Amino acid sequence: MKTFIIGTGLIGGSMALDIKSIYDDAVIFGIDAKEKHLDEAIHLGIIDQKATENDLINADLVIVAVPVDVALVILPDILNKIGEQTLVFDVGSTKNPICEAIENHPKRKNFMACHPIAGTEFSGPKAAIKGLYKGKTNIICEVEKTTFKLQEKAMDLFKKLGMRIRYMDPKSHDKHIAYVSHLSHISSFMLGKTVIEKEKSEQDIFDMAGSGFESTVRLAKSSPAMWTPIFKQNKKQVLKSLEEYIQNLSNFKDLLENDNYEEVYNEMQNTNRIKEILK
Amino acid sequence: MKTFIIGTGLIGGSMALDIKSIYDDAVIFGIDAKEKHLDEAIHLGIIDQKATENDLINADLVIVAVPVDVALVILPDILNKIGEQTLVFDVGSTKNPICEAIENHPKRKNFMACHPIAGTEFSGPKAAIKGLYKGKTNIICEVEKTTFKLQEKAMDLFKKLGMRIRYMDPKSHDKHIAYVSHLSHISSFMLGKTVIEKEKSEQDIFDMAGSGFESTVRLAKSSPAMWTPIFKQNKKQVLKSLEEYIQNLSNFKDLLENDNYEEVYNEMQNTNRIKEILK
Repeated sequence: MKTFIIGTGLIGGSMALDIKSIYDDAVIFGIDAKEKHLDEAIHLGIIDQKATENDLINADLVIVAVPVDVALVILPDILNKIGEQTLVFDVGSTKNPICEAIENHPKRKNFMACHPIAGTEFSGPKAAIKGLYKGKTNIICEVEKTTFKLQEKAMDLFKKLGMRIRYMDPKSHDKHIAYVSHLSHISSFMLGKTVIEKEKSEQDIFDMAGSGFESTVRLAKSSPAMWTPIFKQNKKQVLKSLEEYIQNLSNFKDLLENDNYEEVYNEMQNTNRIKEILK
Repeated sequence: MKTFIIGTGLIGGSMALDIKSIYDDAVIFGIDAKEKHLDEAIHLGIIDQKATENDLINADLVIVAVPVDVALVILPDILNKIGEQTLVFDVGSTKNPICEAIENHPKRKNFMACHPIAGTEFSGPKAAIKGLYKGKTNIICEVEKTTFKLQEKAMDLFKKLGMRIRYMDPKSHDKHIAYVSHLSHISSFMLGKTVIEKEKSEQDIFDMAGSGFESTVRLAKSSPAMWTPIFKQNKKQVLKSLEEYIQNLSNFKDLLENDNYEEVYNEMQNTNRIKEILK
């Protein structure tokens, strides 16, 4: 199976590693704007060889794992260059813009819009790990627009990767993901910022920071190059979730200011329900 | 070593487990407002027997591991009841109120104000674990007010628990800890609240929530009974940190609203520094 990974970072690289161990006949070709990433990916055994977009005509599978702004630009051209039987899927954290971008493309049926909910706060080929997708959710949008045979091919791969499949329309995806993913990143980045601004002595932060702070601020290590275009593409939904978050924080502040500790307690107790939800 | 654990939850219970394995002659007595916790603590091998405050006269060591509002009330009475050679320390997340509460107590020299920065989002005896304190920071306030011999005794224990010691004055402790601990909890609780309010379908939250959301919202599982009095006691500092956090979030919202993606990028990149700080 000739597999092209466009963007050999954490997400694309991890998928390449699993595909190599699942399919005996897998040959992995890498395409990346950064030559350094390609060299690293070869060195780490993630890809077998470098390639260009002109080689896509021979691809069985193309995985587009680049920042979401780049995906919008390159996807139409990728579809222009693939063969009739090639399956292309993306892995981006926003789904409506990409579905709209190729809505009327003659090769729309070769494309599947995917969002595997997996990753870490790290990026680049060195961050790629085997088994990243096992037990994780893969959200697929507008599945009916992908030709049946290529749906089957994709499902076979996702099943072998150990993923759980959920189908959603792209607008609902973008709305919900703003709350459960995009907002978490902003909350974490701004927490990190607030603490760094205050604590001029980094040694003090390190010494006083328990595991609680570390886990809450973990996402603030994420790549700005990946996240800026996500916030841009999902601006409306992200702003809405952020407004509600700020409103809830302001309300909590008011309760504290007014010594309404009974309600402070209730606010926390009601949110403890997250234990059961995430169990 | 006759050790009394007042409050047999995660923090007190974990300390009891370690003390038992470190000191051959350790006998652990438990005092707890909840009879159920004492029964559990005996069943789990955390304490050897139940006790009352009237037994404290025979104590070598008393660990006060109750919510910070309860500690303020019971500590003077505990000090009244201990012997001349008894060491008492607390483990609370606020230090100024407790230091003030026993400032003029005749047994002030028997007390050491401590904050071991360790814990999980769980509580109660069942949450107690061995080795919780290994490699963790213990902040000690007003160490000079504890008699030298009891300082030595405490340091011997903390060393054997594997803790790193930092000395601070109580006001500085409360100010810094508002940023690196208390604020993280509020940020996490309100994130949990915002998502729960939005997502009426809990299955959807579960399916779409990646490890990023899970770690950012982890602290929202914490005990309201423990955290309400912490926010109350450290109200001024917590409000200040919360105001700054809301300000940073609002600023980020404005950048996004005004399509200033260059600054959105910069905000995140500047905060990426948290990687090096927490390494």
